[in-house]
Amino acid sequence: MKFTSPVPVKWIAEFIAAELIGNTEGSATGLNEIHKVEPGDIVFVDHPKYYDKCIHSAASFIIINKKTDCPQGKALLVVDAPFNAYLKLVRYFRPFTPSSKPVSDTAVIGKDTVVFPNVFIGNNVTIGNHCIIHPNVTIYDDTVIGNNVVIHAGTTIGSDAFYFNTKKDREVWYKKMESCGRVVIEDEVEIGAGCTIDRGVSGDTIIGRGTKFDNMVHIGHDTVIGKNCLFAAQVGVAGATTIEDGVILWGQVGVSKTLTIGANAVVFAQSGIASSIEGNKTYFGSPAEDASTKKREIVLLKRLPEIWEKVKNLK
Amino acid sequence: MKFTSPVPVKWIAEFIAAELIGNTEGSATGLNEIHKVEPGDIVFVDHPKYYDKCIHSAASFIIINKKTDCPQGKALLVVDAPFNAYLKLVRYFRPFTPSSKPVSDTAVIGKDTVVFPNVFIGNNVTIGNHCIIHPNVTIYDDTVIGNNVVIHAGTTIGSDAFYFNTKKDREVWYKKMESCGRVVIEDEVEIGAGCTIDRGVSGDTIIGRGTKFDNMVHIGHDTVIGKNCLFAAQVGVAGATTIEDGVILWGQVGVSKTLTIGANAVVFAQSGIASSIEGNKTYFGSPAEDASTKKREIVLLKRLPEIWEKVKNLK
Amino acid sequence: MKFTSPVPVKWIAEFIAAELIGNTEGSATGLNEIHKVEPGDIVFVDHPKYYDKCIHSAASFIIINKKTDCPQGKALLVVDAPFNAYLKLVRYFRPFTPSSKPVSDTAVIGKDTVVFPNVFIGNNVTIGNHCIIHPNVTIYDDTVIGNNVVIHAGTTIGSDAFYFNTKKDREVWYKKMESCGRVVIEDEVEIGAGCTIDRGVSGDTIIGRGTKFDNMVHIGHDTVIGKNCLFAAQVGVAGATTIEDGVILWGQVGVSKTLTIGANAVVFAQSGIASSIEGNKTYFGSPAEDASTKKREIVLLKRLPEIWEKVKNLK
Repeated sequence: MKFTSPVPVKWIAEFIAAELIGNTEGSATGLNEIHKVEPGDIVFVDHPKYYDKCIHSAASFIIINKKTDCPQGKALLVVDAPFNAYLKLVRYFRPFTPSSKPVSDTAVIGKDTVVFPNVFIGNNVTIGNHCIIHPNVTIYDDTVIGNNVVIHAGTTIGSDAFYFNTKKDREVWYKKMESCGRVVIEDEVEIGAGCTIDRGVSGDTIIGRGTKFDNMVHIGHDTVIGKNCLFAAQVGVAGATTIEDGVILWGQVGVSKTLTIGANAVVFAQSGIASSIEGNKTYFGSPAEDASTKKREIVLLKRLPEIWEKVKNLK
Repeated sequence: MKFTSPVPVKWIAEFIAAELIGNTEGSATGLNEIHKVEPGDIVFVDHPKYYDKCIHSAASFIIINKKTDCPQGKALLVVDAPFNAYLKLVRYFRPFTPSSKPVSDTAVIGKDTVVFPNVFIGNNVTIGNHCIIHPNVTIYDDTVIGNNVVIHAGTTIGSDAFYFNTKKDREVWYKKMESCGRVVIEDEVEIGAGCTIDRGVSGDTIIGRGTKFDNMVHIGHDTVIGKNCLFAAQVGVAGATTIEDGVILWGQVGVSKTLTIGANAVVFAQSGIASSIEGNKTYFGSPAEDASTKKREIVLLKRLPEIWEKVKNLK
Repeated sequence: MKFTSPVPVKWIAEFIAAELIGNTEGSATGLNEIHKVEPGDIVFVDHPKYYDKCIHSAASFIIINKKTDCPQGKALLVVDAPFNAYLKLVRYFRPFTPSSKPVSDTAVIGKDTVVFPNVFIGNNVTIGNHCIIHPNVTIYDDTVIGNNVVIHAGTTIGSDAFYFNTKKDREVWYKKMESCGRVVIEDEVEIGAGCTIDRGVSGDTIIGRGTKFDNMVHIGHDTVIGKNCLFAAQVGVAGATTIEDGVILWGQVGVSKTLTIGANAVVFAQSGIASSIEGNKTYFGSPAEDASTKKREIVLLKRLPEIWEKVKNLK
């Protein structure tokens, strides 16, 4: 997330009771988790394994639980519990203030947009012109929706990222990384019924122009989907993944996190994408392979009884 | 869809600014896309590949972008953009007039039917007697529901078909084929929570008497499901498919479009049905095979390391 | 389900017009279906195949359609149609009285709990302190929710079990076993958007403390899930299954009914669990195997063309 105006790091250090090391005169322009950092950002790290990665990331201000060397121009904010300090900042800059009205007073809804009964629209939501929001849709705070967008009934836009801080030495293992990111839906997108699209942890989940989803499609946090994609029913895409323009995913395809699907790739139904795949090709299987390779495999699978007969007496 | 009364083709030609060739004196009784045409219907075609199929289909009136020979008794309506002409007719005969009330004034709800709070019921919906419609259900316009039907919370009935006109030489590749069909749910059906059932593009999506769905079942447009079927949770069925009586689909099964599953077939969990299958048999796998064949295959798969050891030194 | 106070079996026999055999002086403390019976319970059986199992189960009172020997201390309630008698009792002790308000007057909601607009909360629901119930959530009657629980938009808690009495010699094959069980959600649980959790047929569906679900997770009736579990999006778990503490199920995993997953098991995406599996191991595949075994299998599958070349000319 970006702050509305730069925030002096001195003020932040005081707010989270941190010892400040390095560039004590800077100002932060945003707050992000490590997958999404940009210059000017505050980030946090609480595990020695990731100290180096965080300190040398694009982030300018690092909340950390160890005094260590600070690169030129950056600042360290040393605290005992960086995760809690990060949450304190998230809650301050994007406070949870639940709207008690079905449509928040701070929501902006464009011309000729139809909002059906039983829709919930949260704080600071923007919806463009000529959209249709069908009944029982929920749009969480800070969502941005373009023009000519259709969202079918029962769909949820902007629910929290499924993203936890894990420590198995406490009673409750998983503590939630509260989301301060958004969902951005571009023009001419159609979202089917019963879909769920999570907001970014700190960045944006984006659905590109002209992309169409069938029913019950799930999109994880911070995932970026290109233009003119087509996702059939019950497709699930995990978090922080990139899907380029013109990709077709058929029914019940599952896509893992933090990978890339190249432009115009086509993935057949029920396939599972576990790592990045090139564009302009067709895939099938769980785990997915080139579709023609997979089809040959399926043909040969049917010959396994014959193969077994031929080899069972070999030594 | 059927018109409430026959419409002279001359009026239609004028309405869509078409040149009229052939039987200029006829009247149309309905409007359908090519998969569902009946005599008396208007249909459209805009690609040379499908000219013949459309002209020689059951349809009586063909909206087309080329002057060509017209079979005896039929009429061609020649326009530059048949898809746009078709949409103009859909919008005229089934206009989108969103109800601003949770239950439309034109909905008819039977005796002893319970409608919970936060339900949306659209225009021209009919619901029979002794039904239960649980909270946060959405029922789109024109849906027909029989007697003794139960629909669980969060389910959507009658959302639009996932069906697009595709042209990759424009900025937005997919233009929506607006749905004018319906969902028809027969007596004694139970639909679980969080299901989605799409309306037909121009025909009806039908759920047969006594069929039961668990939660999160998705049914595509124009799909016809028989009586006494049982679909477990997270089953997905694509569009224009026929599932005969007494079929059992276990959890997370996926069924492709425009195929037929024979009566009393049983499909094991997570299987994928990619083409038509016979009734009275049991299936497993993705793609699905006869279940006992598939089970033998799975046993032999586990012997692959042994097979490899036996053959790796063969030339 | 447990009765609020013991009910004399004589009264029950009269209420369902049963002939009473055996311990006619006892009182029943609850009502359960055969998978969940405890001493003091009433149970029913209508098929000779299950007579023995039911009569010798923990249940104290057996509704049955045959006069037979009654074990010491128990009672038989002999009727022509045990299923109907059972339903009559369920309806009497847990009557369906739909709330016409979005939040029932008998619901108890804790301190600092936020209930968003368009939420439905049924009769006798209890929700603890510091919970967040997002918009368009439905919570059926009798659900119990602890403290610090978050439920995301569009989720359904407590929908009916998918559980039917089947007889193929009548017009409608499947008659519903009406649910009188509950859903119990313990403290610190987070449930994603668009999830569905069914109530127990007669027992409880339980989600253990600190467990986190992503979006579109389905949990069947009477399933018991331990503490600190993590279920990714689109996971489906069938009925009456036990999942012990610390289990991780990745996206689109399917779990069959009445089995056990041992503590700290990890199941990779799209796998299918068809029978009980041990804890502290990692699984993959449909049907699932030990993950490293499965991975070796996948490597060898890619060698099938080579294997075929080596063996095709063998006799």
